[in-house]
Amino acid sequence: MTVRIGLVGTGTVGGGCIDILQAHRADFARHYGIDVELARVCSRNPEQAESHGVADLFTGDYHDIVNDPTIDVVVELIGGTTVARDVVLSALNAGKAVVTANKALMATHGQEVMEAAERNGVEVAFEASVGGGIPIIDPLKHSLIANEITSVMGIVNGTTNYMLTRMAEDDLSYEAALKEAQAKGFAEADPSADVDGFDAAAKIAILASIAFNSRVTLDEVYTRGITNISPVDLEAAKGMGYAVKLLAIAHRTAAGIDVRVHPTMIPEDHQLAKVNGVFNAIYVVGDAVGETMFFGEGAGAGPAASAVMGDVLEVARHLAADVKPLVGCTCTDELPIMPLEELSMKYYVRFTVEDQLGVLATIARIFAEHNVSLHSVMQRGREESGSVDVVYVTHRAQERDIRAAIDEIEATEGMLLADPSLIRVEE
Amino acid sequence: MTVRIGLVGTGTVGGGCIDILQAHRADFARHYGIDVELARVCSRNPEQAESHGVADLFTGDYHDIVNDPTIDVVVELIGGTTVARDVVLSALNAGKAVVTANKALMATHGQEVMEAAERNGVEVAFEASVGGGIPIIDPLKHSLIANEITSVMGIVNGTTNYMLTRMAEDDLSYEAALKEAQAKGFAEADPSADVDGFDAAAKIAILASIAFNSRVTLDEVYTRGITNISPVDLEAAKGMGYAVKLLAIAHRTAAGIDVRVHPTMIPEDHQLAKVNGVFNAIYVVGDAVGETMFFGEGAGAGPAASAVMGDVLEVARHLAADVKPLVGCTCTDELPIMPLEELSMKYYVRFTVEDQLGVLATIARIFAEHNVSLHSVMQRGREESGSVDVVYVTHRAQERDIRAAIDEIEATEGMLLADPSLIRVEE
Repeated sequence: MTVRIGLVGTGTVGGGCIDILQAHRADFARHYGIDVELARVCSRNPEQAESHGVADLFTGDYHDIVNDPTIDVVVELIGGTTVARDVVLSALNAGKAVVTANKALMATHGQEVMEAAERNGVEVAFEASVGGGIPIIDPLKHSLIANEITSVMGIVNGTTNYMLTRMAEDDLSYEAALKEAQAKGFAEADPSADVDGFDAAAKIAILASIAFNSRVTLDEVYTRGITNISPVDLEAAKGMGYAVKLLAIAHRTAAGIDVRVHPTMIPEDHQLAKVNGVFNAIYVVGDAVGETMFFGEGAGAGPAASAVMGDVLEVARHLAADVKPLVGCTCTDELPIMPLEELSMKYYVRFTVEDQLGVLATIARIFAEHNVSLHSVMQRGREESGSVDVVYVTHRAQERDIRAAIDEIEATEGMLLADPSLIRVEE
Repeated sequence: MTVRIGLVGTGTVGGGCIDILQAHRADFARHYGIDVELARVCSRNPEQAESHGVADLFTGDYHDIVNDPTIDVVVELIGGTTVARDVVLSALNAGKAVVTANKALMATHGQEVMEAAERNGVEVAFEASVGGGIPIIDPLKHSLIANEITSVMGIVNGTTNYMLTRMAEDDLSYEAALKEAQAKGFAEADPSADVDGFDAAAKIAILASIAFNSRVTLDEVYTRGITNISPVDLEAAKGMGYAVKLLAIAHRTAAGIDVRVHPTMIPEDHQLAKVNGVFNAIYVVGDAVGETMFFGEGAGAGPAASAVMGDVLEVARHLAADVKPLVGCTCTDELPIMPLEELSMKYYVRFTVEDQLGVLATIARIFAEHNVSLHSVMQRGREESGSVDVVYVTHRAQERDIRAAIDEIEATEGMLLADPSLIRVEE
């Protein structure tokens, strides 16, 4: 059987998909009994189609794809939540299966997309929206379904993991690490989505929704990035036996789903602490399976296209067997989101202050007044400039208390010479 | 819809399956719309059924399960290749789906089992046969299918990984590490299947068959265990920047499938080198996805039952949707097995010899005569006893040459005081 694909978006990932189809079409026919035919490609850049030798399939108007009755599967790779949403919804409403890599769309309009698929009796697959080529959505929807999943924690943004690795291993400043990541093509000219944590937040919203069978949307994820992290923090963490990672965290708790993205200290023997450079990894704990981790390349043409084309082939298998979607929306429960303020954990806070005894006394007093008890205080570097970094590690404290304390310290005139660095500790 | 399960084998894993069903039956109904009902359990030990509160479902005769027309899925957890083969084949021939954790059966009689399933139009699933709870067979059959898989390398035996970890980190002798593993219940009284590598060999046969779409059977896997490894080797490897693991290796090469199990030195920054203790991990490289790794607990009631019950639920989904098996036998190619003798790599060899200059000269001569050129020679410990360990690391050499050299050295009267330790280097 022939399954005809319409590809919307021919950039890095779309190009990777064309490459895979051109390399392996005959293998797919032999292994899976399906002829996967690229029927049409749509983009704003005709030269991308040309450079992949598919200029004859080009259109500049995605309606030529979603309205083409001979196309079976629409692959949406343009990203964003406006045109992409139109493409996906119109394709589903036209009775076509959809494969997308769009994390923002799924984390924001996931319910609308799943309902449109359900209504039209077609499949929507989005493995590439999280973790690049790493199989994670599929295992959560299939292999691990006998478990109650209790935690999902991921290093799901390669750019920031690369930067943190360089800062930890080679003492690069935040600015130098960012510049290098941009030079290597890992970070965008405007790096905000990566360094401010929003890319990771969309991904954990998707993972939490599947893992806990309850919808989590992007706006429900507490999100802090790595912009205030300095090599001082990574070195101090190392001295305490921890690595610092931008973790996307989702825990099932009695009070609801605890879901957040922020710089996190994890013990250096934790499997996630060993994931360095641009690699991604998602750590999943289930009540039966215990600890598992899924590791791989989180971005790039090949890995993302591997996930997209894996979805395409799986959808094609179902079409070839004339099978209705077997797994639709998995959000069969409605769990509350746990307010961050109710969390309790250990915290690492670094303040850059003038080297005066009075300042340290004031900080200690404010912590004490907010019921934050300190495990350790360390002074670090910079004496020559008259300013010092003071690192506090707390005992277990309430999130509401630590934040009130930091707010008060920040509001006290003449105290801080720079934004504080706050790192939560995950044991 | 109700799907009725017949469980054959109520030991560790079977007990874990009963636990999962008892804990989550209502969750499964809510999430997947399927009532998974335990219909019958079979075992040689009625007290196991009793201790799980299912004495009323007990039978001592598996025919009561495979001949029961009301049972939809038979779960085979007794292991071995005799009775288990009968159970699996009769269940398939009776038109029932089968879920099994039986690596020996699938690595030896896989083709017969897959053909019986195909003939009867029913499904057979065996995720639990490799890597305990780690999803690996399912990702290879689904998420990663757009790739040409080039390598699969796994730490797939937790017992030996535990022993090697203890020997490397705490300098335990092989014997002490084995005794400890037995005391902790990780190793059997007769540890041969683990320490001689046959457990790992069955698993890599299964993984290679799926990854390369070409059948590999247990008898085709070159297999060496860890019985000659001593802490000296682990320390020497560490000094060279390597970790020693019992790796199950399968590479796609132009000359065929290179598949083997043996102690292996891997660079300590390789992701597999960081997998310690009883954990398992399978590292998969594909032409599009690049490097991936799947990590988790490779044994134990919970993890193995997670994989078994995941398969059961997936099969139940298909039965509930009245869907014929979507993925049958995946061996659509027939690739040759590459003869081990044709391999070329670096080798680590340790000989225990008398501390005499003549002995070292003879060894050097024999290596040279077999075209094995040496990268380094190190002498280690034991001087007090009059015997020394001499460690040789070769340049890239032919497997046939290194083996001929070692054979000649072993055959030379009065040379070796103990079996040599041979570790292959995987870069």
